[in-house]
Amino acid sequence: MEAVEVELIYDVARLEERLIFKALRRVGLEAALTNVKSVPIGWESPGVSLSIIRPVSMHRALYAASIREAVGVPTVNRSSTILFSGDKVLTLSMLRRHGVRFPESYVAFTVEAAEKALEKIGTPAVDKPPVGSWGRLVSLIRDEETLRSLVEHREMLPSQVARTHIIQRYVDGGRTDYRVLVLGGEILGAMERSAREGEWRSNVARGGRIRGVKPDPEMMELAAKAAEILGGEFVAVDLLKDDGGYMVNEVNGVPEFKGFMEATQVDVPLRLAEHVKTVLRR
Amino acid sequence: MEAVEVELIYDVARLEERLIFKALRRVGLEAALTNVKSVPIGWESPGVSLSIIRPVSMHRALYAASIREAVGVPTVNRSSTILFSGDKVLTLSMLRRHGVRFPESYVAFTVEAAEKALEKIGTPAVDKPPVGSWGRLVSLIRDEETLRSLVEHREMLPSQVARTHIIQRYVDGGRTDYRVLVLGGEILGAMERSAREGEWRSNVARGGRIRGVKPDPEMMELAAKAAEILGGEFVAVDLLKDDGGYMVNEVNGVPEFKGFMEATQVDVPLRLAEHVKTVLRR
Amino acid sequence: MEAVEVELIYDVARLEERLIFKALRRVGLEAALTNVKSVPIGWESPGVSLSIIRPVSMHRALYAASIREAVGVPTVNRSSTILFSGDKVLTLSMLRRHGVRFPESYVAFTVEAAEKALEKIGTPAVDKPPVGSWGRLVSLIRDEETLRSLVEHREMLPSQVARTHIIQRYVDGGRTDYRVLVLGGEILGAMERSAREGEWRSNVARGGRIRGVKPDPEMMELAAKAAEILGGEFVAVDLLKDDGGYMVNEVNGVPEFKGFMEATQVDVPLRLAEHVKTVLRR
Amino acid sequence: MEAVEVELIYDVARLEERLIFKALRRVGLEAALTNVKSVPIGWESPGVSLSIIRPVSMHRALYAASIREAVGVPTVNRSSTILFSGDKVLTLSMLRRHGVRFPESYVAFTVEAAEKALEKIGTPAVDKPPVGSWGRLVSLIRDEETLRSLVEHREMLPSQVARTHIIQRYVDGGRTDYRVLVLGGEILGAMERSAREGEWRSNVARGGRIRGVKPDPEMMELAAKAAEILGGEFVAVDLLKDDGGYMVNEVNGVPEFKGFMEATQVDVPLRLAEHVKTVLRR
Repeated sequence: MEAVEVELIYDVARLEERLIFKALRRVGLEAALTNVKSVPIGWESPGVSLSIIRPVSMHRALYAASIREAVGVPTVNRSSTILFSGDKVLTLSMLRRHGVRFPESYVAFTVEAAEKALEKIGTPAVDKPPVGSWGRLVSLIRDEETLRSLVEHREMLPSQVARTHIIQRYVDGGRTDYRVLVLGGEILGAMERSAREGEWRSNVARGGRIRGVKPDPEMMELAAKAAEILGGEFVAVDLLKDDGGYMVNEVNGVPEFKGFMEATQVDVPLRLAEHVKTVLRR
Repeated sequence: MEAVEVELIYDVARLEERLIFKALRRVGLEAALTNVKSVPIGWESPGVSLSIIRPVSMHRALYAASIREAVGVPTVNRSSTILFSGDKVLTLSMLRRHGVRFPESYVAFTVEAAEKALEKIGTPAVDKPPVGSWGRLVSLIRDEETLRSLVEHREMLPSQVARTHIIQRYVDGGRTDYRVLVLGGEILGAMERSAREGEWRSNVARGGRIRGVKPDPEMMELAAKAAEILGGEFVAVDLLKDDGGYMVNEVNGVPEFKGFMEATQVDVPLRLAEHVKTVLRR
Repeated sequence: MEAVEVELIYDVARLEERLIFKALRRVGLEAALTNVKSVPIGWESPGVSLSIIRPVSMHRALYAASIREAVGVPTVNRSSTILFSGDKVLTLSMLRRHGVRFPESYVAFTVEAAEKALEKIGTPAVDKPPVGSWGRLVSLIRDEETLRSLVEHREMLPSQVARTHIIQRYVDGGRTDYRVLVLGGEILGAMERSAREGEWRSNVARGGRIRGVKPDPEMMELAAKAAEILGGEFVAVDLLKDDGGYMVNEVNGVPEFKGFMEATQVDVPLRLAEHVKTVLRR
Repeated sequence: MEAVEVELIYDVARLEERLIFKALRRVGLEAALTNVKSVPIGWESPGVSLSIIRPVSMHRALYAASIREAVGVPTVNRSSTILFSGDKVLTLSMLRRHGVRFPESYVAFTVEAAEKALEKIGTPAVDKPPVGSWGRLVSLIRDEETLRSLVEHREMLPSQVARTHIIQRYVDGGRTDYRVLVLGGEILGAMERSAREGEWRSNVARGGRIRGVKPDPEMMELAAKAAEILGGEFVAVDLLKDDGGYMVNEVNGVPEFKGFMEATQVDVPLRLAEHVKTVLRR
């Protein structure tokens, strides 16, 4: 029996995970599945040469990557990428440190601080927690009363992360953003996402419409730079655009790509599998 | 007006923070206070030369450190230290990567995985969440039924971190541990903590008794190594001991030291202030 | 078009709800469905003669019944039954008031009070929150340390109900209980539930095994009395047995009955539909 | 030693509880304190003739009253008053059943249902959870996006009560309301509460300003009726006013009265103590 080369770590088997698994086999790699909902993970050798990290939950992904790396198994993405993209405060710090533009933002932990942040930013503003996907709890703030309501609501949550507010300038044209997929430093393609009627968030999970676009050089350069800063082998970079050009909004270290494949016709899992094979054969 | 040199960032003004602030002035440093509960923090220069990070909440501390560093202000501790010590899964990964011994541990996200972890570890075992202080939610597991109850309880919490279980071998003699304070690579002292009657956790917040001890060479070497691995300027390293010698249990990146001062008679805030002064004068 | 006579209010369409709906039509009643997950409920006439209350969530059931009653629509069960059976502290108060025996119990809101309750009850004891189904968070307490862990865990929950502890004497032979279904004062049947290996809770959701039993007179009398005390038209009464005979453990005001039908061969939905028809024709 | 006549049950000793305790002694009653944070409560005789129920937490108050009543001890207020006033859905049902006017309201459990409720009510609307004090989580809804944000936030809470939305017409002039204190069917007085600048909620905890007012006959009649419907011996009734006259907004079954005393100069604790004495001497 040949040794397993690649381990696919997951918690929910979405279409993405099933396609990646098939693609790994298609390019001739021995692949095994690890469902972190059924087995515990310890700091011991899993007997694989590389782990692809795909849990939907950011923290499950982070912990799985961290434990594999600790015993010498390279991971895609590495734990630091998952962490620094998974927590939006840490993302912004990394971007700022490397001079990448993002919408003016403040971090607030209390009603009092949030109100002061809103004074600096002005309305409308965006309020979001550091961790979360699909636009969840991302709110548009039109007035101080709404902000106060939201802060009071978050106060009820037992996690300090969830009680943290990123108060951010709302970018004109913010109902549209651009998602660029980056793999091993290369741009796989780009799509535009537009919010549906009656909703300002462009997330597909919120009914956003998508269409493939040809990435322009500025878009490509910025996405590649964001990926590089975060050490991301395989990441989705979300860009916003205003009069000053593109800005990075978020980076996703365990990217979903079903919609992206439909919009761009790029065979993402195959490209990923080929990339992993190349990395392994180096 | 002279420029402020040192900023003390806090959320709750414990005795520790008040002593540090006084000590900074005592050694001739200009110091200012930033209460992250009243002001928002943005990615903009705070006009200080160094920030001492003291929020009680790990995530408030992490975010404050991360934002200051992003604009070029050095912090004690740096954000990576706060993060890697504040999350016990990440701590263990760092220790494992550098060959430091810790009690056999597994990470589990579900009842099913937790039961399998307990089978591997055996009873009694310890169950703890990755983030938390003062022994909170750290539980002794004597049988599978208790473990199942605890997992069910944690399932109710909306944060994935809180729903994560570190299942760990219970170390014989675990009712006693050793806390070593490390500052700039030097050992400030050590104390022994023993659980009170009717409680197995040695935390002072749980009624644990403390007494100063003279650190032995093995203890000193291990604590210094743990601090170095985590990049910690000023950390508390908690050690356990079994037949194989000392092990690292946890590291604290925003250490409390009131009890430590009483037990060891070391003037911790003065030593910290002097260290900060030296760093600034380099 | 004939007027709708019966409204079936639900949130999740389990087998039970589908069977009740069919049975209503089978006995010739005009029936309509109201899914409280898709429509709001107001204090206005729904244009029906009776509402059968079937939401899985106790509070959704309570609120739906309360609002329908307020506009003059009779409900099965009535809101007070759902409430007094849905909250176990209120259940025990009703039972005590009418002299019905139940296991010795104390209510505690803090670690301190819970520890004192455990001293009075002794170990092993049972700890459960007032509201919840399927044995969720119901824990067996073998020692004070476990109790303390559980209380600390519940402290994290933002609801005072969830932070309330019913500390109860563990009944010998508690791995077996009896579920009796009562409809309009009549006993529909009984079944015995036994906990699976490695689990002390007999709930079917926890793997408990069930078998139909012929209810004995004491069982029938006690179940009918509990139903009457709570004003329950259609309830499941859970009984425990010790040397002193049967005791009431819990009453369920929105009873599941899939397992009961299998075990007893009683056509519960048909009996319920016929009962509702009789009530309407009175 | 004389038998204790009155028990004051509390969890936090606010000024109110301290004043009631003194007043009981002032009128010559033997009084004892029971702190439900330090002792468990069981279904056994406490050896008192009456219990005054004062826990701040609604559920602690409810459970304490329910358990005392079950063993034959009368309580002020009785458990049903605490329950039906403590849960705003149940309050509205009681009011509706007795033909008392309140702002048009719908109950919604999901985003979908909440959006439909908002369509019926129109904007601005008020969104509040069934249980809570001091205006907490009570939100003004100016548009559908804000409502959706709030529903998403509440979805994160593990309690179904907290995930329930009362969507209510916003009453013009809603920044002012009237609080009437009712004791044993008599009106003790009334005060007007006005929201501070930049806040629409009139709660004192939100900075609302208060002043004593002479209750007019309509106000007195409505408050007394609301108290009677809920069986309240000692309650605060909050009224709103629009072109159609007064409406009942909320009823409080464990009323705070510090501000009320300042605004009206009524010695509430003395009146309460005298009332209790009269009840006991009957």
